[in-house]
Amino acid sequence: MNCDEACTRRVFLRNTGLVAATAGITLAATGLPKFATPAAAKSYNKWGYNKLDTNEVANIAYENYMGLFCASTVLKGIFTPLAKSVGAPFTTFPVESMKWAHGGVAGWGTVCGTLIGASTAVGFITGDTDTTEAMANDLMFYYGGTVLPVFKPATGKWAEIKNTTRAGTPMCHISVGRWMQEEGVAFLSNERAERCARVAASIAAKTAEMLNAWDAAGGTYAPVNKPLANVMTNGITSQNNCTDCHGKDVPKPIMAAGK
Amino acid sequence: MNCDEACTRRVFLRNTGLVAATAGITLAATGLPKFATPAAAKSYNKWGYNKLDTNEVANIAYENYMGLFCASTVLKGIFTPLAKSVGAPFTTFPVESMKWAHGGVAGWGTVCGTLIGASTAVGFITGDTDTTEAMANDLMFYYGGTVLPVFKPATGKWAEIKNTTRAGTPMCHISVGRWMQEEGVAFLSNERAERCARVAASIAAKTAEMLNAWDAAGGTYAPVNKPLANVMTNGITSQNNCTDCHGKDVPKPIMAAGK
Repeated sequence: MNCDEACTRRVFLRNTGLVAATAGITLAATGLPKFATPAAAKSYNKWGYNKLDTNEVANIAYENYMGLFCASTVLKGIFTPLAKSVGAPFTTFPVESMKWAHGGVAGWGTVCGTLIGASTAVGFITGDTDTTEAMANDLMFYYGGTVLPVFKPATGKWAEIKNTTRAGTPMCHISVGRWMQEEGVAFLSNERAERCARVAASIAAKTAEMLNAWDAAGGTYAPVNKPLANVMTNGITSQNNCTDCHGKDVPKPIMAAGK
Repeated sequence: MNCDEACTRRVFLRNTGLVAATAGITLAATGLPKFATPAAAKSYNKWGYNKLDTNEVANIAYENYMGLFCASTVLKGIFTPLAKSVGAPFTTFPVESMKWAHGGVAGWGTVCGTLIGASTAVGFITGDTDTTEAMANDLMFYYGGTVLPVFKPATGKWAEIKNTTRAGTPMCHISVGRWMQEEGVAFLSNERAERCARVAASIAAKTAEMLNAWDAAGGTYAPVNKPLANVMTNGITSQNNCTDCHGKDVPKPIMAAGK
């Protein structure tokens, strides 16, 4: 498997027949045993919605990156127009409160903070755990499989940058590392900050696009990728680029309960 | 470097002189260049607080795990007592809205959802970006360096389990994988669910303990570990177990801006 194949989970899942571009699937349909069927209601109080202008969302996320960083600025991009068109609780929600998620959670390089900010926004807006899970999952696929950043301002606010890269993963460390290598710059550079601001704008716009589609379809969402396919395929929470870390010795998971 | 050393970031940082058990440090003190000094206010509207009973928090998180999963049940554990003692917005916040973070975000095995739930709660409660960052960072260290779960109910709600393990990382995939290997059970087993419920209870209780200390100190927090030490040491958002994935060929980061 070459790098592109190994790194692009959508290709992997398509090849193994696991992409289900079907509408309205629920987590219960993924074959989880009974215990995982939520006892709690999957619907809860949602915060309301009005169609978003994806360009406006992207621009707000981009412009506010430096003070907020990736997760909070995605929230800012999505919530600012909704505060105007819907009102509370968007007006009072402290988007700064999720700044901690930057750099893959406080700089630990785990999941890109844009995906935490985006999924948090989706959770408040849709008011449905299955819909949010499906969108969060599709955002993880989109992030890893897309050449980012997609968003490009007329003039760079903090620097001009040359390169765009495909991370092949939702992990901040690898995503930013691959781009830094291409661009030839350090993490603590204006170029890297510019790139992450543009990535945040890109993910905020994609999230707004998905929410607009959900809204236009009367509050239903057709997942592009099957939720929990990674868990079902690998027998553990995971990505699908196992050999990136395990080399050739990928452990064989126990697929049934018990010893 | 043996596994214990490689996996225990606190040991690594202590050895390299990067643990700063000093009170009241801010991100500005970590040597980040000017651009990273937030333009936005670091303080925002906080949601209020009253001292939490850590046992009560742990029990609520544990009991509600199955319907909510890791991130949301940590929020439930912390917010339920605060809804009683403080009131709104804890009373109206939909803890279910963050269920998507389970399994390292929708089952992708990235950062453990308990840490997303805990950090989200801290962000709303402290109303300060630096304090939240410091606590989130300490929770990441605590999670990776502690033999978990610490919480043990009188009787297992979904199964009895034998083993406790140290993940050496905040990553769900590795954390749950190491425990599954010890216990000899599959991911989709009641034993694994029981373990994750107990881990959620453990992290919820630790978070409440940290918040109680912050509250008792008049809303100030003394970080155990220096925020952003990983970034400063490695020149990229990261953990410190580089060789786990890179083998012996750990790339040399560009430490200064420009080519």
